Amino acid sequence: MNEKPYKLATRVVINDKLGRCLLLKRSAISKSNAGKWEFPGGKVDEGESFDAAMRREVTEETGLEVSFRRVVGAIEIEMPNFKVAQIILEADAESGAVILSSEHDEYVWVKPQDLLNMDLSPYLVSFIKDYIKVIISKQKLPSSGEFL
Amino acid sequence: MNEKPYKLATRVVINDKLGRCLLLKRSAISKSNAGKWEFPGGKVDEGESFDAAMRREVTEETGLEVSFRRVVGAIEIEMPNFKVAQIILEADAESGAVILSSEHDEYVWVKPQDLLNMDLSPYLVSFIKDYIKVIISKQKLPSSGEFL
Repeated sequence: MNEKPYKLATRVVINDKLGRCLLLKRSAISKSNAGKWEFPGGKVDEGESFDAAMRREVTEETGLEVSFRRVVGAIEIEMPNFKVAQIILEADAESGAVILSSEHDEYVWVKPQDLLNMDLSPYLVSFIKDYIKVIISKQKLPSSGEFL
Repeated sequence: MNEKPYKLATRVVINDKLGRCLLLKRSAISKSNAGKWEFPGGKVDEGESFDAAMRREVTEETGLEVSFRRVVGAIEIEMPNFKVAQIILEADAESGAVILSSEHDEYVWVKPQDLLNMDLSPYLVSFIKDYIKVIISKQKLPSSGEFL
């Protein structure tokens, strides 16, 4: 069964009080997707729990305090030697000042309907198309369980 | 931030060569969802990787050898003291004989369009509604990336 193993990663759609979503611009010297926009997140380390990893990534990459709201989807990314299963959550920012890490050069708060106008990391595009359909059709952020 | 922590779990939609999906009937003495049908899967143990957990659960609960195909979704389950983020994958059965564990009393291979006629564990119903729309509309199993 010479299959590629799966690694696990998380992405978090952080909303501010106006319902806008936080995007981070990958560093111009990133090895992959340099200069492209993405949601904060990253790989779960070996032996680390999923819960600890998503909280760690949000803190490291944004400096924000957040409340996690719900799971909103999952995507798969094919790499040469493994696959990444990426689980996506929504969260509410409880504090306002973003502090970037060296992995990102800029940040922006974007209305859901404007997300697709950004130069996104390609692996996020399909997910965002489905995600904003739900957000926009309801004119408000759906409550837990409505999306899935 | 007195938030419930997230625990991680996996579910696997195992297909046979006819495109049918494997459902397992939870034991009549299960503490939750007794007698309801579900896909094989379960919680990721502390310190265990996501990849190891999903392969272990499939082996323990079905005895089948499978090839994992792709991530097809994620759902959230609210529990009194924590939330479960459950990531769902598709896999192909490479061997045919199902061997049940003590957690399940029966198994059945079901065509995707018949899944909703089964007495399912309630947390699976929304996911399956979305899932079968894609499967049936394409008249074949979609390739990686089409679903998400």
